[in-house]
Amino acid sequence: MPLEPSTPVDPRTPRADAQRNRDRILAEAAALVAEQGTQASLRDVARRAGVGLGTLYRHFPTREDLLEALLGRRFDHLAARADTLAATEPAERALTDWLYEFTLDAGAYQGLPATLMATLEDPESALYAGCLRMRQAGGRLLAAAQRDGLIRPDVTPLDVFALANALSWITDRAPTLTERRDHLFRLVLDGFRPRP
Amino acid sequence: MPLEPSTPVDPRTPRADAQRNRDRILAEAAALVAEQGTQASLRDVARRAGVGLGTLYRHFPTREDLLEALLGRRFDHLAARADTLAATEPAERALTDWLYEFTLDAGAYQGLPATLMATLEDPESALYAGCLRMRQAGGRLLAAAQRDGLIRPDVTPLDVFALANALSWITDRAPTLTERRDHLFRLVLDGFRPRP
Repeated sequence: MPLEPSTPVDPRTPRADAQRNRDRILAEAAALVAEQGTQASLRDVARRAGVGLGTLYRHFPTREDLLEALLGRRFDHLAARADTLAATEPAERALTDWLYEFTLDAGAYQGLPATLMATLEDPESALYAGCLRMRQAGGRLLAAAQRDGLIRPDVTPLDVFALANALSWITDRAPTLTERRDHLFRLVLDGFRPRP
Repeated sequence: MPLEPSTPVDPRTPRADAQRNRDRILAEAAALVAEQGTQASLRDVARRAGVGLGTLYRHFPTREDLLEALLGRRFDHLAARADTLAATEPAERALTDWLYEFTLDAGAYQGLPATLMATLEDPESALYAGCLRMRQAGGRLLAAAQRDGLIRPDVTPLDVFALANALSWITDRAPTLTERRDHLFRLVLDGFRPRP
């Protein structure tokens, strides 16, 4: 689980205490979100980290702020990965590989597809900017595949984001369908292709 | 909102009291689920119906029992509708129309797509049988369209159920995408069609 970088500071200052609290909260949040999903109890996170709920909210005013701290690097990695794929793979392969990685990442925690999807309704969410960067990165791959005539022109980056999240949600809600995941992914991708 | 049929009984007997309580609980549940979705507070349902939480649980031991009582007729209607469509429409049209109605019904309450999807993991759920009947009804339409070569042979009734629920979930979580709903529906349906 990638955590935010922590600047080394004098361990005796109040600032060092604050940093230590932040690190502890993030470590316990990572563990609890892995167990219980994105709706994990923030009260339990604070308790396990040995801080009061007020301290947790001072560091992370909303659940989305905490999730952004946990997931931000993953999002940034995925956005950067789109550019790497664009530079090294044919357009259709780049889009397909990236979307597949996106659906796996979006399914990393129980409830995450729903959390990501909800950012569309809340531009104030701390997760909005990271999700937007991913949508834009996917959008560039999509546009390249559309320029090559490999994807229907009426498919938008938002369509792709919504359906990729929806695919992650299927196995999020019904883990027994995990064996159908790749098949469902291919079915949806085939729907993006132009009909002759 | 369809409620279960209530048998007329002598209003002075304990059985009549029980029936009256059940009717009140269902009426308030229908209103609260329409407001708050399938995760509406059962405590609030009991309070609004003027009964104790124990009385609610005597009538409906689980949330799924209560939802089944609210939604059962809707499910039955949809299963019957599949047979009507099969008898009156060409196979592809019958499947498409039925799936479209299914996605609208699955989006009737906030949280319903997730509730329906979760039945796949819990055959003991009170909603399981109704969902199974719908999957089977959809499966018959799918098989007919596959016999005519209009749908890929590797699409299963479970694939269709999962993706139709996933489509309902998209607008459930992101109502601003409602204007894309029909377009997303067509994209997914196109993925079911054989590639030449």
